[in-house]
Amino acid sequence: MKISIIKIGGNVIDYPEKLEEFLSIFAKVPGFKILVHGGGVMASRFGESMGIMPEMIDGRRITDKDTLDMVTMVYAGLISKTVVAKLQALKVNAIGLTGADGNLIRSVKRPVRGIDYGFVGDIQEVNTTLFQQLLQIGVLPVVNAITHDKKGQLLNTNADSIASALATSLAEEHHVDLYFCFNKQGVLIDENNEQSIIPLINEDIYSELRKENVIHSGMIPKLDNAFEALKQGVQRVWIGKAENLMMAVKGKTAGTIIERQRYDLY
Amino acid sequence: MKISIIKIGGNVIDYPEKLEEFLSIFAKVPGFKILVHGGGVMASRFGESMGIMPEMIDGRRITDKDTLDMVTMVYAGLISKTVVAKLQALKVNAIGLTGADGNLIRSVKRPVRGIDYGFVGDIQEVNTTLFQQLLQIGVLPVVNAITHDKKGQLLNTNADSIASALATSLAEEHHVDLYFCFNKQGVLIDENNEQSIIPLINEDIYSELRKENVIHSGMIPKLDNAFEALKQGVQRVWIGKAENLMMAVKGKTAGTIIERQRYDLY
Repeated sequence: MKISIIKIGGNVIDYPEKLEEFLSIFAKVPGFKILVHGGGVMASRFGESMGIMPEMIDGRRITDKDTLDMVTMVYAGLISKTVVAKLQALKVNAIGLTGADGNLIRSVKRPVRGIDYGFVGDIQEVNTTLFQQLLQIGVLPVVNAITHDKKGQLLNTNADSIASALATSLAEEHHVDLYFCFNKQGVLIDENNEQSIIPLINEDIYSELRKENVIHSGMIPKLDNAFEALKQGVQRVWIGKAENLMMAVKGKTAGTIIERQRYDLY
Repeated sequence: MKISIIKIGGNVIDYPEKLEEFLSIFAKVPGFKILVHGGGVMASRFGESMGIMPEMIDGRRITDKDTLDMVTMVYAGLISKTVVAKLQALKVNAIGLTGADGNLIRSVKRPVRGIDYGFVGDIQEVNTTLFQQLLQIGVLPVVNAITHDKKGQLLNTNADSIASALATSLAEEHHVDLYFCFNKQGVLIDENNEQSIIPLINEDIYSELRKENVIHSGMIPKLDNAFEALKQGVQRVWIGKAENLMMAVKGKTAGTIIERQRYDLY
């Protein structure tokens, strides 16, 4: 099986027209595919309207009980089902799922080490059998950032980590490509110049660019994630804008392709 | 296939201990099963905290855009995923679904005839093939009251109607029993006396009891629903308290069994 795992974030989810545009592209991606979505911006805005102020450390949301209920409602309820209904209208037989559904993704509550993140999950296990069965009966999983611990507790989980975990787990038996759609054209030499895309990064180039501080802050966990996925058998990792997804799928230059070092390819 | 369809309402959903007790009973119901849940009381309470006041006509919620978003969050997000996580802890491989997921239940927005109910759906079609496939791969559908029109619109739908529609559609090919758990011991002769259960109702008894005004108001659509389901091939319809579900499953007297007239059984 050849499976494309495509992750979108708030920059697509939060704008109805962008979401419509993305979904119409996504609907045309050939073959087996899984959509992973976050929705943190919408959750923050919605939470604030309920009097729940977002509290973030290193981009991770501190998740108390009220915040967990709120993100469960926004991610697994409103965003998931809105996306599914829109895909159904595009004749894509989507099904919106958390990691609790069918025990698809089991996590463990992050242990308190200095910082107590609350009900935040670190992924332990992916139920690849059920993902395969769902794909085989013709439904397309739309996976959100809620997982569970199999002991009755839901957990808020990073959507990039979910996309990577699905990709690496499924790569054990299948050809998997991983696409991260975000708010830039790709990895940029000059973050203020959308034309300065680095079309290809491998570990050598990455370590150079980090030394020169061209790649820093939020891009570091994204690329670490990408290299880890490649090491664990994922065929290709791409980072770029949602509107360029189809070009990326067709292998055209439109964003950044992450590759392992050449000698690791053989 | 023998399938039990079990519907629970707010009187179970809204009380954590009652929900735990019910789910531990439900987990032990043998064979293939589908859980259908509402959650109107929680939605009303949650909506009010957001400044959305419930507006009901004949027990149906007038559903404007904000109310639809809110019930989608509460039913398909918070309640669905809480129930799924709790069932997973009980080793039941539950999966929480709306009618939009996998196009399981397609509805049409209720036409305005005097009253504009807003985004309320009347059920058109049940995807029995996917329900069967899900049951066969070993997952247990937990279905909430959100459906869609296959044109991109989510719709708020009555959970009793969903349970009946699933039962009658699946009864075309399978042996289906339908259980409605509600806040009384069953259909009562004296609604203030929980001991006055009518153990068995058929159409003759029903028409007598309506004439005498023993059965009135909210019980009428419930029983009309039940007789309709029986006419369309459902084997057995039961109405009673959630805590007596297992007795009902085992065929013991605990609540009200609805039967067609005797001559219709052959």
